[in-house]
Amino acid sequence: MANQISSPRGMRDFLPKEKLRREQILSEILDVYRSRGFQSIETPAMENLERLLSGQGGDNEKLAFQVLKRGEELDRAVDSGDGLADLGLRYDLTVPLTRFYASNQSQLPRVFKAVQTGPVWRAERPQKGRYRQFNQCDIDILGDSTIDAELELLTASLEALDRIGLTDANIRINHRGYLNRVMKELSVDDAAGVLITVDKLDKIEISGVRQELSEKYGDALADRVTSWLAEEADIPQELAAFKLDNPRINFDKTLVRGMGYYTGAVFEIEHPGSGQSIGGGGRYDGMVGRWMGKDVPAVGISLGFERVVDLITKQFDSKPSLVLIYEDIHNALNLQKQAIEAGYDARIEKRVKNIKSLLESMGEQGYENFALTEDEQMFTKLDIKPLS
Amino acid sequence: MANQISSPRGMRDFLPKEKLRREQILSEILDVYRSRGFQSIETPAMENLERLLSGQGGDNEKLAFQVLKRGEELDRAVDSGDGLADLGLRYDLTVPLTRFYASNQSQLPRVFKAVQTGPVWRAERPQKGRYRQFNQCDIDILGDSTIDAELELLTASLEALDRIGLTDANIRINHRGYLNRVMKELSVDDAAGVLITVDKLDKIEISGVRQELSEKYGDALADRVTSWLAEEADIPQELAAFKLDNPRINFDKTLVRGMGYYTGAVFEIEHPGSGQSIGGGGRYDGMVGRWMGKDVPAVGISLGFERVVDLITKQFDSKPSLVLIYEDIHNALNLQKQAIEAGYDARIEKRVKNIKSLLESMGEQGYENFALTEDEQMFTKLDIKPLS
Repeated sequence: MANQISSPRGMRDFLPKEKLRREQILSEILDVYRSRGFQSIETPAMENLERLLSGQGGDNEKLAFQVLKRGEELDRAVDSGDGLADLGLRYDLTVPLTRFYASNQSQLPRVFKAVQTGPVWRAERPQKGRYRQFNQCDIDILGDSTIDAELELLTASLEALDRIGLTDANIRINHRGYLNRVMKELSVDDAAGVLITVDKLDKIEISGVRQELSEKYGDALADRVTSWLAEEADIPQELAAFKLDNPRINFDKTLVRGMGYYTGAVFEIEHPGSGQSIGGGGRYDGMVGRWMGKDVPAVGISLGFERVVDLITKQFDSKPSLVLIYEDIHNALNLQKQAIEAGYDARIEKRVKNIKSLLESMGEQGYENFALTEDEQMFTKLDIKPLS
Repeated sequence: MANQISSPRGMRDFLPKEKLRREQILSEILDVYRSRGFQSIETPAMENLERLLSGQGGDNEKLAFQVLKRGEELDRAVDSGDGLADLGLRYDLTVPLTRFYASNQSQLPRVFKAVQTGPVWRAERPQKGRYRQFNQCDIDILGDSTIDAELELLTASLEALDRIGLTDANIRINHRGYLNRVMKELSVDDAAGVLITVDKLDKIEISGVRQELSEKYGDALADRVTSWLAEEADIPQELAAFKLDNPRINFDKTLVRGMGYYTGAVFEIEHPGSGQSIGGGGRYDGMVGRWMGKDVPAVGISLGFERVVDLITKQFDSKPSLVLIYEDIHNALNLQKQAIEAGYDARIEKRVKNIKSLLESMGEQGYENFALTEDEQMFTKLDIKPLS
């Protein structure tokens, strides 16, 4: 073949050991969320394209993989110059969630607490640590307009991070209402534009922010905004509930977060082991209303699963494992069953001439114990009942 | 909005109760497979289109959702009349598995036993019980050319079906080598064509098979084939190993299975509760070689997860569940933690005026126990330590 046989650019295969580890981590996270009343749902990988591209997804809309129309519809589209695609792969789990809520509201509780996990797809230029298919893990609360929802989401997220060993994770919070109030007090007309620059503070530092603001809006405004940035700020009234709470949740008046749809609190999760945020979210009260014609308050937080996985050093428990080396398959299947009942993961392998290489290969796959099916002494040692 | 807000045609949302049930079933199946040494792997949802459409997928290739090229590549394709798509969504898990093996063989054991589960996509005309996104659950053994691999796959599949309560499931087996030999003995030239007709036996019965063969090949051949169909047949030498084995694995000389890539044994799983097969597979020794330039023996079996789910009546264990109705969120989060530590799934809900309707709604979601956060007596009853 002309091409190397590989997965598509920017999309990964997961080998057994890595896949197992990812599943163990995900299972721990989901267990925490579900035990706190977040209900798992699933939506299709694709949504109708008009919905994916309706302005709810911000810059991610440009990165959507689009799915070609089929059959006569495609022929007509080619002939008429109409859009060639009618479906798209989801680029996040939030747009599908709001669509799901609009489709199924009558069957959901008044306050709907959802947990979702699964792949999303973005046609980004592949680079180290950035993939075109990657997993997200989101929790959202729909139908509660009070700050209780934010408190519940952040508490649950920290609990999930603790469970997988990321006890050093912290959350920064801010509030769009507060930011808009400040912008008004500073006589800023283009609040959104100024906040886009403020959002770059981590990368370009205060001098860079000042320069960019000065170029865009003049020195006077740049001075007002940078002197505000330099001041200490008290936690604003909108976030007062967090004062009493967890010391790992901290007010940061410079946190903006890019997405245009946030209407209230915004959050970002950080860990000292990672140079980037490992998750984030916020309140998006207007988004569900877009589909339903009535507003539904909503707030969510997303864990960047790929970044989280990279940070974890904790080992998770698994069953003891055993390779049964056999000559007679019927005998082996029988013994395998007994080993599984005794609590082992038990793999059967036909006896080969080069048994050393077989044992090495199985060792590389993580197998700990080995026995020939005729080795009754070994079974006694492993506490497996001998073949009857 | 002009359109109804729904998921794309033929693709489903899963509400919490259904999602939970699907996950419980899948988890039991995976547990059986993994405990028998099948290793989980994952491939991307998409593959390069040329590979998906290379003739390995049979009729399913026509049903592949194709993904539009992007940016300049798309412009060039439109201008030049080249293919508009470069990627496609997988329509099964077998083509991606063979590609995965070719990409990663150096890191896999000599005999590779894989379990895969996940969605596949086919642009079929939607109809009752047929979806455009649906889940499959496959096990495959690559690198073992002996019938031991078939025995292991079928034993594991029956074990998995038993675990989820489908103890009445049976497997029919046949062998392509045997069928080809018989066709030769019956002086059939177009073996593939005749077998396509024989494969319809379940639907059109022996009279229909005779008529179709007679129309296509004349009366003499139709008579030879139908009298062979009417004879009792002994299990052929290729499948002799199954004689000794499980009474739920039965030879059926009329089983063909459509896919062109099968080279040896073929299987189909049946259950009296379903009018259709609930799974199937076979040996496909030539397929991996297509990518690698060297043959690798391979055999697999797939459970049709959607059909399996529909059959299951068994209830699976879950934790006891509790709704904590609160006025003060900090108090509630504290109590929730204690309830979870005491072994409950514990959801917190703000106290509302219409508490009856809240309790009903939570009951519908499956919650069994309810307590006001100030009701210490209730916590004692539920064996949760009272708030300190």
